[in-house]
Amino acid sequence: MKHHLAAAAALCAATCAFSAEGMWTFDNPPLKAMQHDIGWAPTPAWLDKAMRGSARIADGCSASFVSKGGLVLTNHHCVADCVEQISSAEQDRLQAGFLARRPADELRCEAMEVNRLEQIVDVTAELSQATAGLEGTAYKTAQNAAKARLAAACVGSEGSKRRCDVVDLYRGGQYKLYRYRRFQDVRLVFAPELAAATFGGDPDNFNFPRYDLDMALVRVYDEDRPLAVADYFHINPQGAAAGEPVIVTGHPGETQRELTVAQLALLRDRLLLDDALGLAEYRGLLTAYRETGAEPARMAASELFFVENAYKAVHGELKALMDPALFQRKQDDEAALRRYVAGAPALAASTAGAWDAIARAQKAHGMLYPLHSLLEQGGGFRGDHFRLARMLVRGAAERAKPNAERLPEFHDSALPEMEARLMSAAPIYPAFQKLKLGFALTKLREKLGADEPLVRQVLAKQTPTELAARLVEGTRLGDPAERRRLWEGGAAAIAASDDPFIRLALAVDAQARAVRARFEREVEAVVQKNIELIARARFAMLGDSTYPDATFTLRLSYGVVQGWEERGGQIPPFTQMGGAFERATGAPPYALPPSWLKRQPEIRPTTPLNLVTTNDIVGGNSGSPLLNRQGELVGLMFDGNIHSLGGAYSYDPATNRAVAVHSAGMLEALNKIYGADALVKELGER
Amino acid sequence: MKHHLAAAAALCAATCAFSAEGMWTFDNPPLKAMQHDIGWAPTPAWLDKAMRGSARIADGCSASFVSKGGLVLTNHHCVADCVEQISSAEQDRLQAGFLARRPADELRCEAMEVNRLEQIVDVTAELSQATAGLEGTAYKTAQNAAKARLAAACVGSEGSKRRCDVVDLYRGGQYKLYRYRRFQDVRLVFAPELAAATFGGDPDNFNFPRYDLDMALVRVYDEDRPLAVADYFHINPQGAAAGEPVIVTGHPGETQRELTVAQLALLRDRLLLDDALGLAEYRGLLTAYRETGAEPARMAASELFFVENAYKAVHGELKALMDPALFQRKQDDEAALRRYVAGAPALAASTAGAWDAIARAQKAHGMLYPLHSLLEQGGGFRGDHFRLARMLVRGAAERAKPNAERLPEFHDSALPEMEARLMSAAPIYPAFQKLKLGFALTKLREKLGADEPLVRQVLAKQTPTELAARLVEGTRLGDPAERRRLWEGGAAAIAASDDPFIRLALAVDAQARAVRARFEREVEAVVQKNIELIARARFAMLGDSTYPDATFTLRLSYGVVQGWEERGGQIPPFTQMGGAFERATGAPPYALPPSWLKRQPEIRPTTPLNLVTTNDIVGGNSGSPLLNRQGELVGLMFDGNIHSLGGAYSYDPATNRAVAVHSAGMLEALNKIYGADALVKELGER
Repeated sequence: MKHHLAAAAALCAATCAFSAEGMWTFDNPPLKAMQHDIGWAPTPAWLDKAMRGSARIADGCSASFVSKGGLVLTNHHCVADCVEQISSAEQDRLQAGFLARRPADELRCEAMEVNRLEQIVDVTAELSQATAGLEGTAYKTAQNAAKARLAAACVGSEGSKRRCDVVDLYRGGQYKLYRYRRFQDVRLVFAPELAAATFGGDPDNFNFPRYDLDMALVRVYDEDRPLAVADYFHINPQGAAAGEPVIVTGHPGETQRELTVAQLALLRDRLLLDDALGLAEYRGLLTAYRETGAEPARMAASELFFVENAYKAVHGELKALMDPALFQRKQDDEAALRRYVAGAPALAASTAGAWDAIARAQKAHGMLYPLHSLLEQGGGFRGDHFRLARMLVRGAAERAKPNAERLPEFHDSALPEMEARLMSAAPIYPAFQKLKLGFALTKLREKLGADEPLVRQVLAKQTPTELAARLVEGTRLGDPAERRRLWEGGAAAIAASDDPFIRLALAVDAQARAVRARFEREVEAVVQKNIELIARARFAMLGDSTYPDATFTLRLSYGVVQGWEERGGQIPPFTQMGGAFERATGAPPYALPPSWLKRQPEIRPTTPLNLVTTNDIVGGNSGSPLLNRQGELVGLMFDGNIHSLGGAYSYDPATNRAVAVHSAGMLEALNKIYGADALVKELGER
Repeated sequence: MKHHLAAAAALCAATCAFSAEGMWTFDNPPLKAMQHDIGWAPTPAWLDKAMRGSARIADGCSASFVSKGGLVLTNHHCVADCVEQISSAEQDRLQAGFLARRPADELRCEAMEVNRLEQIVDVTAELSQATAGLEGTAYKTAQNAAKARLAAACVGSEGSKRRCDVVDLYRGGQYKLYRYRRFQDVRLVFAPELAAATFGGDPDNFNFPRYDLDMALVRVYDEDRPLAVADYFHINPQGAAAGEPVIVTGHPGETQRELTVAQLALLRDRLLLDDALGLAEYRGLLTAYRETGAEPARMAASELFFVENAYKAVHGELKALMDPALFQRKQDDEAALRRYVAGAPALAASTAGAWDAIARAQKAHGMLYPLHSLLEQGGGFRGDHFRLARMLVRGAAERAKPNAERLPEFHDSALPEMEARLMSAAPIYPAFQKLKLGFALTKLREKLGADEPLVRQVLAKQTPTELAARLVEGTRLGDPAERRRLWEGGAAAIAASDDPFIRLALAVDAQARAVRARFEREVEAVVQKNIELIARARFAMLGDSTYPDATFTLRLSYGVVQGWEERGGQIPPFTQMGGAFERATGAPPYALPPSWLKRQPEIRPTTPLNLVTTNDIVGGNSGSPLLNRQGELVGLMFDGNIHSLGGAYSYDPATNRAVAVHSAGMLEALNKIYGADALVKELGER
C-alpha cells in the first residue's frame, strides 16, 4: 500500500495539500503521516476518548455519543427501519418525522443494537498456532473453533452486555480480539421528516452539492434508564472552516484494496455485474409496487431506499473496476510484490504459489457462486420468513453442539444479537413478503435453470408466485411468540412443526450446508490461507505503515474540508440552508416538508447545511462523527460523492470526497425548525 | 474473416463435420464452401425461388410464403403485437389463440408490413463518387442524399407497392440497392395460444430442449384479395433427419463481427452494460405492474416478452465480450490486418490511421451517448405518444424540404411505412403509457443529472410521474384521426397544436437535432469512412470469400441438423410432442393450453416438435424458413441456444445452435389440436 500512498502524494502535490488515504486502526494510528500531512496528530488521551465516544450500530452503521445522558447521533437512513417499524397506516412517522419532547416519549427500536469499542487485543499468535499446518476444511474448522473459544472467554458470563469478535485484519495478516460494550435497549428520540433527511432522493444520492438533514438521535438505555456517559462529543456550533483538518472515527464496512488481481477480475466480470443486474431489476419491481397504493408505498419505502443506494454503489464499483487504468495499477502493484517475493528465497518458498492458488479458488468461486448465493446465502428465498426459519432450523441443530463445533454465527458470543433479531417485534407485512419471495424464487429458477433438481424440488408444480403466496399465507413465523416457542423448543419443536417455511428450510438444509462446506473448503479456506501469506509478504516489503482493508470495525481517517474539480469547474465544499429552498420544486424528491416551509423566515439562509471533506470513508461509515482537532463534533458523515465509489478498490485524493451534515445546520434545524429545546439544551451541556 | 473460418474448420474437424459460419448475401452465395462442407450447393434457380419465397416483416422478423394463396408462415412472437391489438378485455386472443376458418374471418394486422426481395443492384460506385474527398457532416449529407436519390428513382411512382433501400454491406465495403415488393394489407389467419407458442416462457428462452409451437400464419392481400403467389415453400411433413444439410433464408438483424477492438471495448465497457442494466430495471417494473390486475397484465404482456428476450440477449452478448479469449482473438485478428496494411505502402497511406480514427470516434461516442440515446433516440421519453409526436413534428419540417435534403427516415421512399405506423389503429393504453413514460423521465433525470438544463426544462417543478400523467391525460395523439389531421396539416397544423406531446417534441427538437448532428459528424461519419477503408483492406487481404455483417437483409446460412455437447453430456437435436406433456406442470409458463390437454390422446407423442441445427443465425432471423436441399420447408426458426448469443461477435461451431419448430409438429398441431382442415389442405396443395 505504501506504493499507493507514494503515488497519491505525488499526485497531491500538484492538486491538493496531501493524501488523506487510509482507514487506520486505533491501535496503529498514522501519527507521523498526520503530523506531516495536517501538522497535527492525536495524543493517546484524544484517541482514547474518541474510541469511547464513537459507536457502531450493529446492523451496519456508525454513530457517536453526544451527551452525557446517552444521546447517540447517527444518520436518518440508519434508523429508517426503526422509524418504519414504529409507524402504521394511521401514523406514518417516516413521512411526518418524530420528536420525543421528554424521555418518556422515546420509542424502543426493537431490532437496534449499539456497540461501543472498549478494548483491542492481539490474538494473531493464538490463531496461527490453532491452524498451523492445516488445509481446507480442517483449517477453517480449527480457525472457527479458536475464534469461538477466544470470543467466549472474552464475553464470559456478560453475554447481554458484552460482545467480542475476532477480527481478521490485513486479510489475516493480523487477528485482533475486539471487545465491545453491547446496548440492546435503544430508543428513538428524533428523526426529521424523510423529505428533509433525503432531500434530492436517489437523483442527488452520491452527488454534491447536497442539502440533506440526514440525522437522527437515539438514546441508549441501561437497565431501563438513560445511560450515563463519560466520553461523548460536544457539538461545535461553528463547525470546521474550509481547509481545516478533520478526523472521522467510524466503522467502514468493507473494502477490497488488498485483493489479488484474480479476485478483482472475478468481481468485475461476474459478481458485481450480477449484483448490479439483480439490484436493477429488483429496483424496477419495487418502483412499480410502490405505485400500487399508499400502503405498498409505505411498506416498500425503506427497502427501495436501500436498493437504490446499493445499486448506485455497486454500479459505481463496477465502473471503477472496468477502468483499465485502475486495473493496470492493480496489476502493476501485484507484479511488484511478486517480484519482491521471488527475490527473497525464504519468502518465495512459502508464498510464491499464493497468487495462483487464489486464482484457482476464484474458478471454484465462479462455479459454486450461483448455488451458494441462492441457497446458502438465501438469495433464492428473499424475505423475512425464510431468514427466520433458517435461523430457527439451524439454531436448533447448532445449539445442540459444543460451542466450538458450531457454525460461527451460532457461537455463544453471537447468540444475544441473533436472539434479538429473531424475537424482534418489528412487523412483517405479508403482501410485501409475497412480492419479495416470488421475485426471489423466479431468480432461483432463472439462475439455476428449470431442470435443476433443487428447483424442481422447491417449486414442484407451482409457479414462483403461487408458491410464495402459499408459504406466506400458511406461516405463523410472523408472530414473535411462535418464533420464541420454536427457538426454545429446539430440535424437537422444529421436527414437530408443520410451518411451511420451517419445512422448506429443513428440506433444503442439507444441500445448503453442503454447498457452504464446499465453498468454505475450496474458496474461503484457500483464499484465507494464501492471502495471509501475501499480507505477510506485503508487511515484509512495506513495513507496518499500511492500513488494513475495512472490516466494519472502528477506524480513524484524517483529511481536510475541501471541494474538488469537476469538468473544469470547482465544486465548493459547503452548501447552505438557503440553497435547499432554492432547489426545492415542491415535488418529491425535491419537496421540503411543511415544517421547513413554515419556518423559512426564521432560518438563517447562510447556515451551512452539508459539506465535503477529503476523508477516506466507505459504506458503514454512515453516521460517523466528523471531529476537529479539539475532539469536537463538526459534522455527521452520511455519504460520499460519485468518485468515492471507487474507494472500494483505491483512494483518489483529487476527487474522492466524503459528504457530511454540518454541525451548524443540525443545531439550526433542531432550534428553528423542530423547536427541540430540551434536546438542544442537553446537547449544549458540557 | 477467413482467419476465423480456418480456425473454426480446424476445431470442427475434431468435434463436428464442418463450419456453418456465415450469413451470405444472395448475390454472393458460398457455393464452393457449401459443396465442400455439405456436398451440395444451390443452383441459380434454387436461389431465385428461395429469394422470392422468403419474406421480411418490416418491423424486425423474417417469414416465408407457404401457399399459392398468399399464406405467410412466421413465428407467433412476430405477430404477438398484432394479436394483442385485435384483442380486448373481453376477448383475449393472445391467451385464447386465433383461427380464421375462412378468409372472411381473417383480421387485419394494422401495423404489419411484409416485404419480398425482388432485386439486388450494386451501387458502390455511385456512392463512392458522391462522397469522394468529403469528411464529417459533408460526407454524411452527401451520402444520405445519394441514397435518397437512388431509392427514390428505384421506387418511382410505385410507393405503396415498392420499397427500395441502399444497404451498406461490409460496413460500407459495398453498397447495394435492395428492391422489395411491399405488402401493407396483412391479415392474421392462425396464432396458437400464447401458452403453446411460448411454453417454458422466459426460463426456457434461449435454452434447449424446447417444446414451443412458436408459429403463426398470416395472409398477404393485394387489392383486397389474397395475393396469388408463384414462388412459395411446400411444407415437408417428414422434416429433416439428424445430420441432414439444411439452409436458412432469412433476415438476420445485426451482427458486430467486423467491428474494431475499440468499438467492441466501448460496447463491452459501456453500451451493453448500460443496456443490460436498463432492461433489467424495466423488466422488474413490468413484472410488478403485470401483477396489479388482469388488464395491466394484458397490456404489458408483449412488452414484457420483448424486454425479457432483449435482456437475455444483451446479457449474453455482454458475457461473450467479457470473455477474455474472445476479446484476445479479436485483438489478434485486428493486429494481423494492421500488420498486413502496414506492409503494403499504398494501403498503409490510405488506411493505417483508420483504427485510431475509429478509436477517437469511440471517445466521442462515449461522451455524446447519454444525451443522444435519451433525447434523439427518445429513450428519455419512452412510449407511443412521444414517438408519434416526434414523427409529426419532424415530418412537418422535413417534408417541406427537397427529398435529398431531408433526414433519411423522411425520404420519399420511407414515407409509406412511416405513414402506416403513424396512422395505425392499434390501441394505445393510457395507463400503460404513463408507466413507461414516467420510468423514462426518471431515467432522463438520473442519467443526465437533476442540474442539467434539459432536465430542468422538461420536468420544471414536476416529478417524472406527475409530468407523465399530465402529458398522457392531455394528449389527443391516441386518436389516429388527430394524427392524420396533424400530418396532413403540416407545419401550420403543428404550430397551431396545443397538444402537450407536440409542444414537448417541439420544445426539445432543436437540442435533439443538435446532438444528432454532432453524433453523426463526430461518430458515425468517422466510423463509416474509416471502417470502409478497413473493409477494403480486409478484401485485399482475404479476397471476397467473406460475408458481411448482418443488416436485416436477406441472407443464406447453411448447416446441418445437429445437437451439441454441454457439461459432458450430449444434447440430442430433436424434441417430441410427448415431451411437452411430460414437462407440463399446469402452472405458467409450463401450462399447456386446454386445447392440447383435450387432444392429447390423438396426438402422436413421437411427433418431432422442435429441433436444433448448426445454422448461423441471429435476432431478425425469427420466422425464417428452414429448407432442405429440395427447397422444401422442414422447419421454422424461432430461437438460438444460449451459446448463440455470442454470435453477435463470432460463431462457434461447437456450441452455437439455431432452434426451430419442426414441420411435422406444425402440421400435427394444425391437424389434431386446432382442426384447421382448410389451412392444412391449402398448405398441402402444390
